[in-house]
Amino acid sequence: MWIQDMTTSECLRILASTKLGRLASARENQPYVVPFYFVYDEPYLYSFTTLGQKVEWMRSNPLVCVELDEVESSDYWASIVIFGQYEELPDILEWKQERLHAYALLQKHAEWWEPGSASCTHRSHEQPLIPVFYRIRIGRITGRRATPSPGEPVRSEKPSPAEKSQSWLRRILNALSMRGCGV
Amino acid sequence: MWIQDMTTSECLRILASTKLGRLASARENQPYVVPFYFVYDEPYLYSFTTLGQKVEWMRSNPLVCVELDEVESSDYWASIVIFGQYEELPDILEWKQERLHAYALLQKHAEWWEPGSASCTHRSHEQPLIPVFYRIRIGRITGRRATPSPGEPVRSEKPSPAEKSQSWLRRILNALSMRGCGV
Repeated sequence: MWIQDMTTSECLRILASTKLGRLASARENQPYVVPFYFVYDEPYLYSFTTLGQKVEWMRSNPLVCVELDEVESSDYWASIVIFGQYEELPDILEWKQERLHAYALLQKHAEWWEPGSASCTHRSHEQPLIPVFYRIRIGRITGRRATPSPGEPVRSEKPSPAEKSQSWLRRILNALSMRGCGV
Repeated sequence: MWIQDMTTSECLRILASTKLGRLASARENQPYVVPFYFVYDEPYLYSFTTLGQKVEWMRSNPLVCVELDEVESSDYWASIVIFGQYEELPDILEWKQERLHAYALLQKHAEWWEPGSASCTHRSHEQPLIPVFYRIRIGRITGRRATPSPGEPVRSEKPSPAEKSQSWLRRILNALSMRGCGV
């Protein structure tokens, strides 16, 4: 398996075809990460949720990180990391155009798994529905892609026992053991 | 779809059957999240990597957050969030037993997708291999599970167009629109 850094345009291509990522925020240096659904529209990731810990933390510190990945098989995958900034689209006149834009995007691309929107429907019967439209302004984006080495057979989704015994971790652990690396 | 908070024992059952999660760290309130492979052995998640940004950040601030999820279908999924503490298992005599324990666990459960170990093999030909064994001490663990509502048909992995049009996000966006919630 070869692992290579991806170019920004390669990262953006994957980003454009992905809907589900993990969104990390931080408060007083305690990180917090949850799955989230988004729509990519350069240079932003648009999303929708309801009031909760995630929003409270991002309001207090807008620095965020988004991770997303595509795993086809053991030796064919990509992982992307984005450093970005949280921007809320408040329900006031100055933000009406941006809010309408987010609304149109989210309606157009609404998918079947929306934890944010579902949670407000069923978990908080007594609480008023407080929708929060927001976007992540993409700052730095990096990605890594793994591909099979030349001559290496493409692995199936689940490895055979023989493949497992040849796993990278096992090989490295064995190598460390032989080199007396303290384990 | 119903979303419910999970009990700690339910969370731990899912944790025990999961190998891949997302690990978030933070430095100067900038969060950073990457996929990682782990082995759960109460009260820790054990893992292995090589020197890099993730380790540097966790050394400087051991507060971390781990997210993992199981998605069977649109209305049958679980998501777990763990607040924890990074503990490195250094290559010194005082840590030899813990390091041997981590090594044995990781060898036993070595799986086919190990980005940490593979990356050091192929990305840094010139750099010496510096293995880092570490564990996350589990602090608070919470989880949410979605299940179909009574009478609601179980959805397939991919929704039909009719299902899409009934998606929760769309319904909520429509409700907001009708209520004049500013979008």
